[in-house]
Amino acid sequence: MPVKNIRLVVSYDGTDYFGFQSQPGGNTIQDILEKAILRVSGEKVAITGSGRTDAGVHSWGQTINFQINSPIPAEKWRLVLNTRLPESIVVRHADEVPLAFNARKDAKRKTYLYQIQTNKVPNVFQRRFQFHQYRTLDLPRMMEAASHLSGTHDFTSFCAPKTTKENKVRTVYNAWWEQEENLLKFYIQGSGFLYNMVRIIVGTLIEVGEGKTNPDEIPAILAGCDRSLAGPTVPPHGLTLWEVNY
Amino acid sequence: MPVKNIRLVVSYDGTDYFGFQSQPGGNTIQDILEKAILRVSGEKVAITGSGRTDAGVHSWGQTINFQINSPIPAEKWRLVLNTRLPESIVVRHADEVPLAFNARKDAKRKTYLYQIQTNKVPNVFQRRFQFHQYRTLDLPRMMEAASHLSGTHDFTSFCAPKTTKENKVRTVYNAWWEQEENLLKFYIQGSGFLYNMVRIIVGTLIEVGEGKTNPDEIPAILAGCDRSLAGPTVPPHGLTLWEVNY
Repeated sequence: MPVKNIRLVVSYDGTDYFGFQSQPGGNTIQDILEKAILRVSGEKVAITGSGRTDAGVHSWGQTINFQINSPIPAEKWRLVLNTRLPESIVVRHADEVPLAFNARKDAKRKTYLYQIQTNKVPNVFQRRFQFHQYRTLDLPRMMEAASHLSGTHDFTSFCAPKTTKENKVRTVYNAWWEQEENLLKFYIQGSGFLYNMVRIIVGTLIEVGEGKTNPDEIPAILAGCDRSLAGPTVPPHGLTLWEVNY
Repeated sequence: MPVKNIRLVVSYDGTDYFGFQSQPGGNTIQDILEKAILRVSGEKVAITGSGRTDAGVHSWGQTINFQINSPIPAEKWRLVLNTRLPESIVVRHADEVPLAFNARKDAKRKTYLYQIQTNKVPNVFQRRFQFHQYRTLDLPRMMEAASHLSGTHDFTSFCAPKTTKENKVRTVYNAWWEQEENLLKFYIQGSGFLYNMVRIIVGTLIEVGEGKTNPDEIPAILAGCDRSLAGPTVPPHGLTLWEVNY
């Protein structure tokens, strides 16, 4: 009977991994974390993440928990894991939470960040985390379009068809753009997200920024509940799971 | 007889390369650039860089030139090379310069940047470019020490003994620290730099920041012309060749 429930906030560069969730071939964030916990404690645990991230997607604030018997104090977990993890996975924070805490079920709000670099040439130091697109995007139009996403909607139009989730209703609390010179940063906060939802939203907002779609068409795209109404799915490497709130 | 002299400003993530200068085993920035130029133009050229960068050292503004017969217009070189280079090497700028221009001999000033991350945990997105040291460094002391570096000095104390250069006199125009939260950025501008010079200077300034050395000991370390008087050589991955001026 495990005596402790440990919560970790884990950042990672997802470039070289097959996503968060464990796979038979290994090389996922979950597999590597579980192996590190086993090496540290001798205990084989199954960690629970706040949600999956796809292959190539990064994290600043992915949150996980695991129950364990080990006497290692909560605050030591960060250090003992960081010395054993590859440099591309870093535990930022560790604490002990009540045994009932579940990183997936108890997540109240998630924030994702998508970064687009519109300079003529990609920034070599940020290339793993920024989608490079040399083009002029009309940011005020993209901001207006983003404002239509807030609220509780059926997001079927913004969900990859191969999802297994039946209920496509989600609540977006806020969605906005920030600009730093040629870097466009899209933040979206919601109760939860469907498969590829953020990447399809960004692909749709880029088409708004290019003038192919009007900002006020977003409500009709939502209402249509048809994936073909929305824009393309942008690549994973621009996406970062920024924060999970409980 | 080559008809054009092309100058490129090249940024690179040096993590996975054996430095700038060509080596028999290849996998250097120079080897990869020369191969890309050969594929584009069919001409085997020898490029001249403003200077070497060591294995693991990065560049934002490394500048090179090569003479070539190819009719490719100067402004097209950026695009044709970037489509053939790995993502970790990006040509930022290309122009045509007089045939006599030499990227090494004509360099008037070089600026290097060294980044130290002093947060408890490394930043996973910047880990390739920042030296992580969780410790308290006294920045005002380090600023004072840096001010003693400006001027024309014999930098033997700040040069790796295995250098082949006879003359160790160099001119530092300016050296200063900038702070962004837990990120310390050291910039140094000079006429040229000796082997490992910036990394030994940073190692010495860190000892000043830790209180092991006094800022006003820098002039004596310089005057001593003895490598053992200075601090350790910090790792290459924190170092970036920032800019080269002509």
